[in-house]
Amino acid sequence: MEFKVKSTLEYEIKGPCTLIFGIQALNTRSQQVLEEGLKLEPSSVEHDQFVSSGGDSRFLRVVTTCEPKLRVRYAARVDTQCKVVDSSELERVPVQHLDHDTLTMLFPSRYCQSDRLGRLAWQKFGEIPNAYERVVAITDWIHRNVSYESGSTNSETSAYDTITQCAGVCRDFAHLGIAMCRALNIPARYFAGYAHDLTPPDFHACFEAYVGNRWMIFDATRLVPVNGLVRIGTGRDAADAAVVSIFGDARNTAISVSCEAVTPGFKPLHAADLVRKGVCLERST
Amino acid sequence: MEFKVKSTLEYEIKGPCTLIFGIQALNTRSQQVLEEGLKLEPSSVEHDQFVSSGGDSRFLRVVTTCEPKLRVRYAARVDTQCKVVDSSELERVPVQHLDHDTLTMLFPSRYCQSDRLGRLAWQKFGEIPNAYERVVAITDWIHRNVSYESGSTNSETSAYDTITQCAGVCRDFAHLGIAMCRALNIPARYFAGYAHDLTPPDFHACFEAYVGNRWMIFDATRLVPVNGLVRIGTGRDAADAAVVSIFGDARNTAISVSCEAVTPGFKPLHAADLVRKGVCLERST
Amino acid sequence: MEFKVKSTLEYEIKGPCTLIFGIQALNTRSQQVLEEGLKLEPSSVEHDQFVSSGGDSRFLRVVTTCEPKLRVRYAARVDTQCKVVDSSELERVPVQHLDHDTLTMLFPSRYCQSDRLGRLAWQKFGEIPNAYERVVAITDWIHRNVSYESGSTNSETSAYDTITQCAGVCRDFAHLGIAMCRALNIPARYFAGYAHDLTPPDFHACFEAYVGNRWMIFDATRLVPVNGLVRIGTGRDAADAAVVSIFGDARNTAISVSCEAVTPGFKPLHAADLVRKGVCLERST
Amino acid sequence: MEFKVKSTLEYEIKGPCTLIFGIQALNTRSQQVLEEGLKLEPSSVEHDQFVSSGGDSRFLRVVTTCEPKLRVRYAARVDTQCKVVDSSELERVPVQHLDHDTLTMLFPSRYCQSDRLGRLAWQKFGEIPNAYERVVAITDWIHRNVSYESGSTNSETSAYDTITQCAGVCRDFAHLGIAMCRALNIPARYFAGYAHDLTPPDFHACFEAYVGNRWMIFDATRLVPVNGLVRIGTGRDAADAAVVSIFGDARNTAISVSCEAVTPGFKPLHAADLVRKGVCLERST
Repeated sequence: MEFKVKSTLEYEIKGPCTLIFGIQALNTRSQQVLEEGLKLEPSSVEHDQFVSSGGDSRFLRVVTTCEPKLRVRYAARVDTQCKVVDSSELERVPVQHLDHDTLTMLFPSRYCQSDRLGRLAWQKFGEIPNAYERVVAITDWIHRNVSYESGSTNSETSAYDTITQCAGVCRDFAHLGIAMCRALNIPARYFAGYAHDLTPPDFHACFEAYVGNRWMIFDATRLVPVNGLVRIGTGRDAADAAVVSIFGDARNTAISVSCEAVTPGFKPLHAADLVRKGVCLERST
Repeated sequence: MEFKVKSTLEYEIKGPCTLIFGIQALNTRSQQVLEEGLKLEPSSVEHDQFVSSGGDSRFLRVVTTCEPKLRVRYAARVDTQCKVVDSSELERVPVQHLDHDTLTMLFPSRYCQSDRLGRLAWQKFGEIPNAYERVVAITDWIHRNVSYESGSTNSETSAYDTITQCAGVCRDFAHLGIAMCRALNIPARYFAGYAHDLTPPDFHACFEAYVGNRWMIFDATRLVPVNGLVRIGTGRDAADAAVVSIFGDARNTAISVSCEAVTPGFKPLHAADLVRKGVCLERST
Repeated sequence: MEFKVKSTLEYEIKGPCTLIFGIQALNTRSQQVLEEGLKLEPSSVEHDQFVSSGGDSRFLRVVTTCEPKLRVRYAARVDTQCKVVDSSELERVPVQHLDHDTLTMLFPSRYCQSDRLGRLAWQKFGEIPNAYERVVAITDWIHRNVSYESGSTNSETSAYDTITQCAGVCRDFAHLGIAMCRALNIPARYFAGYAHDLTPPDFHACFEAYVGNRWMIFDATRLVPVNGLVRIGTGRDAADAAVVSIFGDARNTAISVSCEAVTPGFKPLHAADLVRKGVCLERST
Repeated sequence: MEFKVKSTLEYEIKGPCTLIFGIQALNTRSQQVLEEGLKLEPSSVEHDQFVSSGGDSRFLRVVTTCEPKLRVRYAARVDTQCKVVDSSELERVPVQHLDHDTLTMLFPSRYCQSDRLGRLAWQKFGEIPNAYERVVAITDWIHRNVSYESGSTNSETSAYDTITQCAGVCRDFAHLGIAMCRALNIPARYFAGYAHDLTPPDFHACFEAYVGNRWMIFDATRLVPVNGLVRIGTGRDAADAAVVSIFGDARNTAISVSCEAVTPGFKPLHAADLVRKGVCLERST
């Protein structure tokens, strides 16, 4: 599927500041950036771009000295893959068959304290035999129990909090899903990206779980079609894939985001409509 | 310096179980494994070995099926590097000059919630100009305020807890040091290893902070000489570099660890004795 | 109903120490202490007894100077009231009709952080119209979701922890029940006492909720008959009604507790067997 | 000293609502309400007033049915006591000499988790011999380490959080002081009141510690003179003495508070200016 994504972010800046942005579409075997543009204002501002060593996230670093304002504009046309897989093929991968990079996605992380959720997770989901259906049950449970409320959480909110507070935004939904999966020994990772037709428009977060030797996509918010996602980055949790990390004194003053399917006749696939099927955004290796 | 390290771990096991051990000395440019031996009992038990994709940790994975007991013995002779550096050379590396792998050591992690400690860290240590001396002040402060007490904490204890509970073991001292460094924008990582002459003998943990473009070693417990360490692994925190991660029902029944300097005339360097100098265990790149 | 209760507690003591015990049966309009005996060893040890100003708890204070050991033995014969009430009579009492002492049982307390559980409580139980049935639903939910496991928690464990850890002892079950009730604007208080036929024998804790102008008794552990309780004290949570509070260096070395019905033909009433009925241990005023 | 206090609170109300206000000056042996007025708009709104059973707090309860707006105006002229006491007279009262009501002020409470701060408190303040000076050291330490920042905390923030976050408002300063005192076995309680010349004007909170058989007043914010306080209520923490507790859907839209000394030549006593002396707002019994 082909998408047009765009984002503009504006900052007021006091003093020297380094900002690291995760807003550019990742270019991989499974997602091709067909064309893209980046525009910084002032254009003279120092910046560099890099990809994480595992290749799973893309970053733009901007270093301001005395610029009082910064505007970052990004736009791209991206072609994504999306494969529908039968859940019967998506059994649990035993820990003994995981490679190290996948193993790290079993470890507890800042926002996904899976080590504290073991009993709860096994009690609620431990009896579902198929691994994919287990993750579906987790996302359904989150969807039922957590209300989506803008502004209800902040950058310190973790899965451990959300489980009791029962409110959050996409990032919190993702963290809780990841924590529950890991507690059940299912590797899970954070997905940051653009999402087709998200209302109100914003960056989006959801998660991938590793079942049947594939990273399957899940979104407990049910706000977007799972085939309408454009990946910016992947990581253990939001600490690895923040939209922006600011080192210094900068204040966001405006943000606008958009993502539209340009493939004619794009048919949104909603997770809730899939029966015993799931969606994978990566080509299998 | 040359060290002889040894460890024996025994487990009672109920049912199929996967155990991932981090007990083998890492073989790198800065630390050479001269010879080593690994012995599993029963010897027929399935196992494999691997190094993390970044090369910073080494793992042994054992998969039991019906063995009721498991014994793992490891022994090695290891040659380590150790460079003493003047603290005046160890200034803060601005965020704009960090590569991505080092950047991730600024992110908050499961046991090092640096995002919640910013104000405390800046208030206590923000005015110390030299970055290395700043980290020294952090370790001194931890040493003064946290009591070393075996059994006072568990696998869920994090830096956020230790700061108030004021007690812990080496792992907790390391986590608090890491969290404080990251809160001050100094990359820091967990060091798991063997330690010369540790009493009572056990595996050890401390931390490294990135200043002056080097990973300098710090140990707030002050229990071992900083030139008496043999690295097993490095990671964001103990989640990345556990002595053992158990998937299944296994219970540790015995553990013995030793580490002795075999270099004739080995002179232990204690951090507290160094004035405006620090120790680096890695060759600079 | 008439019960014989007994308890013996032994301590090793280092240095001067004050111990405040909550182990004596309360003497009220609804619970009559027919006879009782208290024996301290050494018998010369300084002590006094007092009842809290609201009359809801009874305490024994022992002050040691140089005694290395202390043994406290208590035995009593107690006559308790128990009234079975129809749940249809047990509607919610609006906040505007509560007196101040009852109002305080709506406030969050150390172990019952009702202020953090509002959304969860309303979401799970908000639609049950009858107040008594709402509390029954809370205790059923706790019974289903929390495992009773000796030693799984400690004196710092609170309702906020239990909700996620899903394990605890009677005190934790009580705290969670209280916190959920208060979050729903139903006053609730901690009940500490002796319990008929508890296995293994120990002191017991459960809770009372104020509905239909009565303090109805609830026990999410389902370990004892609700008509088999002898009250020692009542409070906001375990902080108000501890078995013992120790100021100084004393270590419990032995404990034995018993409670037997002496009423011939005592018929245990189990909460789970009551349909649309509840039990109140206090005479209505 | 004589003070004129005034407050006006306004609410937008959706549906039936009960509001319990703690805004009226307490009338006791040590603080005399000379004259006062209360005005509710609409004047027809149902309300009652009561004092807590221990006499330590005063409440106004307002029950709205369909009023869309509520305004509460209160004004009073109050005469307060204030005694300066030598710190040498203010030794620790052993636990064995405390009556039950004072004992409860040793228990941990919702916002003052003294049970979790024992080691920290003893380590920092355990060596100061005189009890009053110990509490002075606690307030000095809080003053140095916690920044006063409006809006930095919310109604869920507790002493355990503040110790690490290092920011808060008067209520948080009070909670931390109380928690530290209790951890050291010094009874401490929350004081809610009006404060002379507070900028910006608002209700104020501080705390009292029980030393030398007196409740001495302490204010770690150092924002107001300790002889410039008019007591509204006293309790274990803010849960007992909230400015307003709302049961229903009401939103505060305006608040104004004032407190002025009317005694000619009133001389503000600032805690920081007192050397080895303290202030008590209660007549000794």
